[in-house]
Amino acid sequence: MSPFTMDSNLHQQLMTADQISNLLAKDRQYVWHPFTQMKDYEQRDHVLIQRAEGIFLYDAWGRKYYDTVSSWWCNVHGHGHPRIKEAIHKQLHAFDHIMFSGLTHAPGITLAERLVQLAPEGLHKVFYSDNGSTAVEVALKMSFQYWQQVGNTTKTKFIYLEGSYHGDTLGAVSVGGVEQYHALFKPLLFHGYKMPAPDLRAAGGHTLADEAIVAEQALAPVRELLQLEAEQIAGIIVEPMLMGAGGMIMTPAHYLTELRKLCSAHQIHLIADEVATGFGRTGTMFACEHAGISPDILCLSKGLTAGVMPLAATLCSDTIYAAFYDDYMTQKTFFHGHSFTGNPVACAVALASLEVFEEEAVLERIQLTIRALETALHGSGLAALPYVANIRQLGLVAAFDLYEDAQRKMPFPPEKRIGAAIYEAGFEEGLILRPLGDTIYYWLPHCATPEDVSDIVSRTLRVLNKVLG
Amino acid sequence: MSPFTMDSNLHQQLMTADQISNLLAKDRQYVWHPFTQMKDYEQRDHVLIQRAEGIFLYDAWGRKYYDTVSSWWCNVHGHGHPRIKEAIHKQLHAFDHIMFSGLTHAPGITLAERLVQLAPEGLHKVFYSDNGSTAVEVALKMSFQYWQQVGNTTKTKFIYLEGSYHGDTLGAVSVGGVEQYHALFKPLLFHGYKMPAPDLRAAGGHTLADEAIVAEQALAPVRELLQLEAEQIAGIIVEPMLMGAGGMIMTPAHYLTELRKLCSAHQIHLIADEVATGFGRTGTMFACEHAGISPDILCLSKGLTAGVMPLAATLCSDTIYAAFYDDYMTQKTFFHGHSFTGNPVACAVALASLEVFEEEAVLERIQLTIRALETALHGSGLAALPYVANIRQLGLVAAFDLYEDAQRKMPFPPEKRIGAAIYEAGFEEGLILRPLGDTIYYWLPHCATPEDVSDIVSRTLRVLNKVLG
Repeated sequence: MSPFTMDSNLHQQLMTADQISNLLAKDRQYVWHPFTQMKDYEQRDHVLIQRAEGIFLYDAWGRKYYDTVSSWWCNVHGHGHPRIKEAIHKQLHAFDHIMFSGLTHAPGITLAERLVQLAPEGLHKVFYSDNGSTAVEVALKMSFQYWQQVGNTTKTKFIYLEGSYHGDTLGAVSVGGVEQYHALFKPLLFHGYKMPAPDLRAAGGHTLADEAIVAEQALAPVRELLQLEAEQIAGIIVEPMLMGAGGMIMTPAHYLTELRKLCSAHQIHLIADEVATGFGRTGTMFACEHAGISPDILCLSKGLTAGVMPLAATLCSDTIYAAFYDDYMTQKTFFHGHSFTGNPVACAVALASLEVFEEEAVLERIQLTIRALETALHGSGLAALPYVANIRQLGLVAAFDLYEDAQRKMPFPPEKRIGAAIYEAGFEEGLILRPLGDTIYYWLPHCATPEDVSDIVSRTLRVLNKVLG
Repeated sequence: MSPFTMDSNLHQQLMTADQISNLLAKDRQYVWHPFTQMKDYEQRDHVLIQRAEGIFLYDAWGRKYYDTVSSWWCNVHGHGHPRIKEAIHKQLHAFDHIMFSGLTHAPGITLAERLVQLAPEGLHKVFYSDNGSTAVEVALKMSFQYWQQVGNTTKTKFIYLEGSYHGDTLGAVSVGGVEQYHALFKPLLFHGYKMPAPDLRAAGGHTLADEAIVAEQALAPVRELLQLEAEQIAGIIVEPMLMGAGGMIMTPAHYLTELRKLCSAHQIHLIADEVATGFGRTGTMFACEHAGISPDILCLSKGLTAGVMPLAATLCSDTIYAAFYDDYMTQKTFFHGHSFTGNPVACAVALASLEVFEEEAVLERIQLTIRALETALHGSGLAALPYVANIRQLGLVAAFDLYEDAQRKMPFPPEKRIGAAIYEAGFEEGLILRPLGDTIYYWLPHCATPEDVSDIVSRTLRVLNKVLG
């Protein structure tokens, strides 16, 4: 089906051309969009979305697009899932938002219980906040304050990985390894230790032995640092298995299992940022499961509410919690909180999403989609294209890199903005693609069918062909 | 009406005693509440809320409480306002959440337009995020990057006020002036200049002349600093007219008008954090209106969605926006964004809230409530109590301080935790009070009636009498 096919049910609700151009003029006049060079939209409009259902978004002209990036890696069960809407209506009937300090409520409590049951073992306490950045800020402050309160007061620094991304608030930026996002803000950031990422692209054949080599190369400087400086270090923060914004870098499980051992041996908190990878995206409920490890602190958001409403959670061990639990006058309280912490509507949505996971056996169902994605990636002729390299996949996420000469890994000149051209051409083929530089990726919602996957890859080939010939 | 009176409509929905104790046991087992010493709840339970309507919260036993703090200063039109619920249902029917980069949508655009129309003049661009902390982080990063991009690269520092609170992410904590919340985290914070707050409590008679003296005393060191160091300073961040978490410190309009002049003269951004004061709470739509000034950057959240859902907005001038607007390759993009930026449901709620402001003529209506609050505060015998001092009010917000000897301003010993005792006794009188130390305050929702106000103050007197005799 062409993306330009008009959906007749939709026709009645469509805006007039005047309404559309009026809105788009106002968009240009009033709105500063996130992560956007607004001048890029001087000549062309933002895509005005008017409806969303399942994996599809519909613009105001009635054009239909595959949401191949799950609306910034958030959407889980598709847009407009009836169980989610029902949960919102039901919760609003009881109460909307109340303060979560001194007061408590069933959706917040029950969700905390479910998260503890689902999360890697040993994570027994849930601290809510609103987004991935705040989930990470909570983790960093919790780890830092923990060491102060147990008397290891020199443990004040954090390790993070090159190419990592943990959010845009200044604490989260401080542990971010993407130069483009944080170099400018250096005077506002705290100092940490940047370690290399175990990028599986270096592993060639991707056998377990190759993966172990990549892992060990990245672990060597960590081992060295901990040998010398463990007493200065509070924790290490990682995106387990899959580093998203840094370029869809996939990393070996071996790295995590060894890192877990190192952290335990040197008394360092292992902080797993599963804001993006959580809730089935990598094929397991949490990415840590690929390595069979538990972090000391786990950050969740995005898919937590099936991608419908802002909500985040930071889970931690009883050991960490215990260091804050004392008489008030000892001043060990964790003074952190946001107005909408534990928002009952968002908690109700998250609970409904977890019910859908069970009722629809989502984790089993997606295995088919994951295999279809593998088939499409490797059976579609994509790999044979002279400008495509590093096709990689983990669960519902897949990526490949574009090069002027893929065999010699010769990149396109940055000023060509190949990724941006692909992005624009994607719209014309009914795809919301959102390349990271010259890395094209899919971040599929769990509702994607094998047919969707095959269609998406076919359309992508047409886009590539159009832009790169 | 006693808070213990059972609401018969509610009776059917009540949980069983077993369900309640089961939930509360789980609360204790799994939930780490914000800004809470969890050990305070070892002997007693959190209050389990099951329903909310208007100014009232109802617990699982059917007990009714006045939400005198508007659920952490958020709630505006009362809980469960039908127009808000309707807006959510309508938006969910169209689409839930979509990415706000590359894509756009009517609720996000229309809300931006409305905010620009309502905000102090000169604020023409709207950047969305999720909560007050992120609104402030956006403001700080925007200001910092602005100066870098216009070539004043030495302007990297911020001024903030003693007793100020701007949120809990590490950037926001860096410009926070409440020692208790940030002293511990110093190694993770960037350095700024802390200036005294123009605390009106020092003004005795509260005539305009007294206020001007307080303002000028606080301005003197700012003038001095700017004379010497303006070239190092990017901006100053203030909570206009009312500093909330620092102890409900009310400040003179004169301070703001003079600060505006100083900032313009020395090329410093004036950042107004109206996360708490915005949307009518101080009697005007925004607190800046009391001084008739416009900041360069304005931070909004809490009341933005009538306190129902997480959403924040940072507004800025065209001058600031223009410094980021350039060809992509010049690398001037503002690389900031959160997954749920511009959440369509939250934007629809905010729009509905602004419609309620108009339809119900809320800003006019609350003037009656504000006068009733004034009458109740000064006609109730509160001022005559030997332990009460500094009764103060701005719009729907009022506060007073408790002292062992009010006349001599002799505080209670901190270990007595008088505020905490008042808080607990409040529940028994059907009041959600949430003192800041020994400062008791009201932060009333706009739906409060003059009768509610008088009842709340009477109940407060009973609480005070119970705790302090």
